[in-house]
Amino acid sequence: MRISVLGAGGWGTTLAILLYFNGHEVTLWEYKKSYAKTLSKSRENKLYLPGVRIPKEIRITHALEEACDHQHMIVIAIPTQYIRSVLSQIKKHDFSDTTFISVSKGIERDTLMTVSQIIQDELKNISPSQVGVLSGPSHAEEVSRKIPTAVVAASSDELTAKEIQAAFITSYFRVYSTTDILGVEYGGALKNVIAIGAGIVDGANFGDNTKAAIMTRGIAEISRLGMALGARPETFSGLSGMGDLIVTCMSRHSRNRYVGEQIGRGKKLKDILKSMNMVAEGVETSKAVHKLSQDHEIETPICSAVYKILFEERDPVKITYELMTRDMKPESE
Amino acid sequence: MRISVLGAGGWGTTLAILLYFNGHEVTLWEYKKSYAKTLSKSRENKLYLPGVRIPKEIRITHALEEACDHQHMIVIAIPTQYIRSVLSQIKKHDFSDTTFISVSKGIERDTLMTVSQIIQDELKNISPSQVGVLSGPSHAEEVSRKIPTAVVAASSDELTAKEIQAAFITSYFRVYSTTDILGVEYGGALKNVIAIGAGIVDGANFGDNTKAAIMTRGIAEISRLGMALGARPETFSGLSGMGDLIVTCMSRHSRNRYVGEQIGRGKKLKDILKSMNMVAEGVETSKAVHKLSQDHEIETPICSAVYKILFEERDPVKITYELMTRDMKPESE
Repeated sequence: MRISVLGAGGWGTTLAILLYFNGHEVTLWEYKKSYAKTLSKSRENKLYLPGVRIPKEIRITHALEEACDHQHMIVIAIPTQYIRSVLSQIKKHDFSDTTFISVSKGIERDTLMTVSQIIQDELKNISPSQVGVLSGPSHAEEVSRKIPTAVVAASSDELTAKEIQAAFITSYFRVYSTTDILGVEYGGALKNVIAIGAGIVDGANFGDNTKAAIMTRGIAEISRLGMALGARPETFSGLSGMGDLIVTCMSRHSRNRYVGEQIGRGKKLKDILKSMNMVAEGVETSKAVHKLSQDHEIETPICSAVYKILFEERDPVKITYELMTRDMKPESE
Repeated sequence: MRISVLGAGGWGTTLAILLYFNGHEVTLWEYKKSYAKTLSKSRENKLYLPGVRIPKEIRITHALEEACDHQHMIVIAIPTQYIRSVLSQIKKHDFSDTTFISVSKGIERDTLMTVSQIIQDELKNISPSQVGVLSGPSHAEEVSRKIPTAVVAASSDELTAKEIQAAFITSYFRVYSTTDILGVEYGGALKNVIAIGAGIVDGANFGDNTKAAIMTRGIAEISRLGMALGARPETFSGLSGMGDLIVTCMSRHSRNRYVGEQIGRGKKLKDILKSMNMVAEGVETSKAVHKLSQDHEIETPICSAVYKILFEERDPVKITYELMTRDMKPESE
């Protein structure tokens, strides 16, 4: 198959290489002209995936139109807030035979849309069966070292989900399928807010008990919110929700957990963000969750605590004890 | 309330202290006469909870009958395989006004019973509304240091679950309630098999991706098995299942994860068990899961892999790649 990967970050580059070794004809698009040239010459993504060779058969380009021509699949590996502006440049393209696969995990700031919704909103003639998502616990560095990994491919169309599954699966990269595309997207995006919460627990020197509680009750509340948004609650306990949250919370490299940890230590959000060269999707997503849970009248105490700590400078320690001393509840609420 | 805790391990001791500070009149029973004397004198459980003072108001005794007299609640904090023999000594006692609360996480070897089932099997006049369970991500050392912790109290009788919730809840120990007592018990016990699997992943030097996949897919399979056994699947995604698995897998102190790690490094099971002074419930439980999944014809690939690695000396690395290359599946299977 001809597959194009839009976005040459760590994950986009890793997937381009995986797809190439799976027998596909792969194009990797990078938005910065100079960096596309560097990548093409050096065959190494020093900024985002150092030490991994990019095979010379992978075409690296800065030309968006060219990257999108006659592709069977186009993988979207661009930070969520930039996806619409990229897609708007290829609006008029003929995509009648192309499947779009999002591997980005966020919610659009102003519209509160997931990536699959942005794709269908921006490219008018795309049907839902042409849109899918690939998500799950998958650090790019580990996948590029062929460490066994399991993810989930989702599309509202079962056949599309299975096509994506077949395109990506290898002996070290196991792909499950599901038709709950919204659940996979909301799980992948909303879990970043919980990851910030878990980071705060680390930074403020609470314990493993506290962190496990935040993660478990966090997944419970985002799955309640997801259900109100049309997703299936069990998806949030799967690879794209809890699975991805676990890997995020175990890792020192996770940007969302890192932001939380720094906040927990008493640093200011804007100073933390200034010092990072990558996007922490969870910061924007926590604003989105704040709005979504108000709109749908779903109680999300942990996400709401993260929001208050990030944007209203509330004290993490105080707010944790407030969470602990709410009314006694059944576990199902 | 008068509450007796049977079993002066780390967790039993921690709960006795917590209950005392919650205003209850507490008795702590230790099965070894000499150690009961030591505890009573030194007021410190040097073997299992070093550095924590046991208030002198907590009565410490080796006399089982005396410990069980006129108690509103009796907490069972004894390794699962020894519970029946302890209960058989107090069979004839009048327990008409007593609620039993299990905090042990295992399945009985020969009968495949959970602890609540053992209690009702051994003490004939006890009704289901007199039996409950308290479970969740709760390292004893952290609870005894008053680190914020969340657990779940379960009983098939909602009122009993709420009574347990009220007896234990404090500003740092948040207790949720549920009526799915079987789900809480199976979750707490079966997750130890997955924890051994996660330990194997650590020991054999796989990655965080692999560990998150094993944990997530592991919870999915034990919740399928649990459902066949009469439990509610969503309970396994809660505090007693996934929550407890997370804390177990994050911790260097977990005995079950430790057993797995040593196995992953190539050590023999009997040598590992010989070197430990505490019980790793997951080893026995993996035999129970093996039988249960055969009896109920539920596929449990991860538990089955753990069983084969533990008892048939199969190679962990080979078996992990076998797991990765099974047929392509939907996430719901």
